[in-house]
Amino acid sequence: MSATSEPQVLRIGLLGAARIAPAAICIPALALNHKLVAVGARDLQKSEVFAQQWMIEKAYGSYEEVINDPDIDVIYNGLPNSHHGFWNIQALNAGKHILSEKPFGSNLAEVQWQVDVARKSSTKIMEAFHNRYHPTNQRAIEIAKSGEIGEITSVYADLAGPVSDKSDIRYQLDLAGGAMMDMGCYTIHMQRHLGLALFGEEPTVVSAKAKEFSPGVDQMMTVELKYKNGATGTGHCDLDFTHLQNECIITGTKGSIKVPSYVLPGLDDRVIVTVNGKERTEYLGRISTYSYQLQAFAGFIRGTNTVLTGVEDSLKNAAMIDDIYRAAGMNLRPAPLMKL
Amino acid sequence: MSATSEPQVLRIGLLGAARIAPAAICIPALALNHKLVAVGARDLQKSEVFAQQWMIEKAYGSYEEVINDPDIDVIYNGLPNSHHGFWNIQALNAGKHILSEKPFGSNLAEVQWQVDVARKSSTKIMEAFHNRYHPTNQRAIEIAKSGEIGEITSVYADLAGPVSDKSDIRYQLDLAGGAMMDMGCYTIHMQRHLGLALFGEEPTVVSAKAKEFSPGVDQMMTVELKYKNGATGTGHCDLDFTHLQNECIITGTKGSIKVPSYVLPGLDDRVIVTVNGKERTEYLGRISTYSYQLQAFAGFIRGTNTVLTGVEDSLKNAAMIDDIYRAAGMNLRPAPLMKL
Repeated sequence: MSATSEPQVLRIGLLGAARIAPAAICIPALALNHKLVAVGARDLQKSEVFAQQWMIEKAYGSYEEVINDPDIDVIYNGLPNSHHGFWNIQALNAGKHILSEKPFGSNLAEVQWQVDVARKSSTKIMEAFHNRYHPTNQRAIEIAKSGEIGEITSVYADLAGPVSDKSDIRYQLDLAGGAMMDMGCYTIHMQRHLGLALFGEEPTVVSAKAKEFSPGVDQMMTVELKYKNGATGTGHCDLDFTHLQNECIITGTKGSIKVPSYVLPGLDDRVIVTVNGKERTEYLGRISTYSYQLQAFAGFIRGTNTVLTGVEDSLKNAAMIDDIYRAAGMNLRPAPLMKL
Repeated sequence: MSATSEPQVLRIGLLGAARIAPAAICIPALALNHKLVAVGARDLQKSEVFAQQWMIEKAYGSYEEVINDPDIDVIYNGLPNSHHGFWNIQALNAGKHILSEKPFGSNLAEVQWQVDVARKSSTKIMEAFHNRYHPTNQRAIEIAKSGEIGEITSVYADLAGPVSDKSDIRYQLDLAGGAMMDMGCYTIHMQRHLGLALFGEEPTVVSAKAKEFSPGVDQMMTVELKYKNGATGTGHCDLDFTHLQNECIITGTKGSIKVPSYVLPGLDDRVIVTVNGKERTEYLGRISTYSYQLQAFAGFIRGTNTVLTGVEDSLKNAAMIDDIYRAAGMNLRPAPLMKL
């Protein structure tokens, strides 16, 4: 077996013993037979407990140690939003491939900064919009494109949930918090990808309204979009909602497509299609979005496929988030680590 | 949301804190967002350690407690071969769905016994030939069927590895051990499914030769098969080989299809196709076979799909294993638990 044809086992290092890390990287890595080499957190003890729980070989008390570990070729960045850009750049400079949590940075300027570095690098970087890789969403977009529900007239996408701890990083401006950053980025990502699939062009921002938790931090955001053919798009996100909600409804002249769980289709894999009043349900499978994402990322590194959430996509998503904050009359997120 | 349209979260109980259980059920269950409710082992302490390691809610010191737990609707049976049939029947009688490790029983009579019970039951049971659900094997069979490599002339499938501990259950006759049981069942399962896909008919046993580790226990087995069109099949398995080997090669009049890892395509997802001397490689993805299997099983329970390894398939695989032992001049495995 020659070196190039060898199956690629990713040797993964984690930045941050984050709450999302087990679902986003540990379980998928185990399910895809990759290697969890190290985890780094500022608190070494937290790192050690996490490493033991998830059968990770090494625990470090800093992010640098993970980035500089020669046994690692892939970095998973699960740090707070404000720390994505900076640490991604350190990892790129260390020659590592990167799977980075969304959103890619605090604002477009910070995303542009890391994309400039990434483009000069020989390693691969990808923003973790995991839901885009699940068959449920692939199928919903395919049906919308097929014309089965007629011409698209409106698209609705929400993401809301109960973040009851008000000291959570998502309520902190200097960590690039806000409902739009944490949850809204999914709603517009879905809208953008629908626009690209349906009309070869992304929707544009018409208006945005925020409810602020504290000055500059949106607890809730409602966004109005417009598609190329005149169809309307609505995005809604809320950090302080009664329950987890993540529905996408695509309405056309002949019917509708409903995805009850487009962000986490691994929990509910239905696509409900109604045409001329007749409803059918397709089930696309409950393998987690994160497994599909890691599979796509591994193929991206191996060179056997491109990805739907590459740096071009990240730039466009960041630009739209900035547009939305401006339309809501709010400031952009600061990017404190850019000064370092 | 009505009860029938609700996404089904399987509430899983494990029989045995088996070595294979983490890969076969714990990781896939986590990756598919199912629930690991309980594990039972004869040694309670072993059960408790396993439960803690794999975030399983309850640990029991017996199999009965798992089977009778009302919080469980699915049983994973990872016990030794000789214990599959008996405990599957107990679980069927308790109204549980069952995913049972292969081979399904010690011999055809024992498999027939549990299939008779299963057929009268309203619950679903499936033999865990996980590899059959991976896109790598699906694709290999599809290419063979397409005619791209011409008419099929021979099929080769092996499975061999180093089982160095001679006290291992696989070397014990009363636990239904033997190379053919543990490894060979995969080689003929692949051959049988190729026969069904290509010719609508399974191959038949021409001859078999065993090398015995101890009286009645095959350490190695070579099997010669014949397909409907006259094509030959060869199966080879060895418990005492230098390294893990699991290759399937389908040869036709115009070329060949090689699957370097047909039993564990999650470790190597290639399908290598050679037609008229020109080679191409397809990569089908490294999500583990066990995740695909659990997905298929969940859909089977939900009623949204049938499965490729249902009781009919189990009966035919068991019949062929018996045929092979007879052709090798050996006795069938005893089924001690049938007397209970």
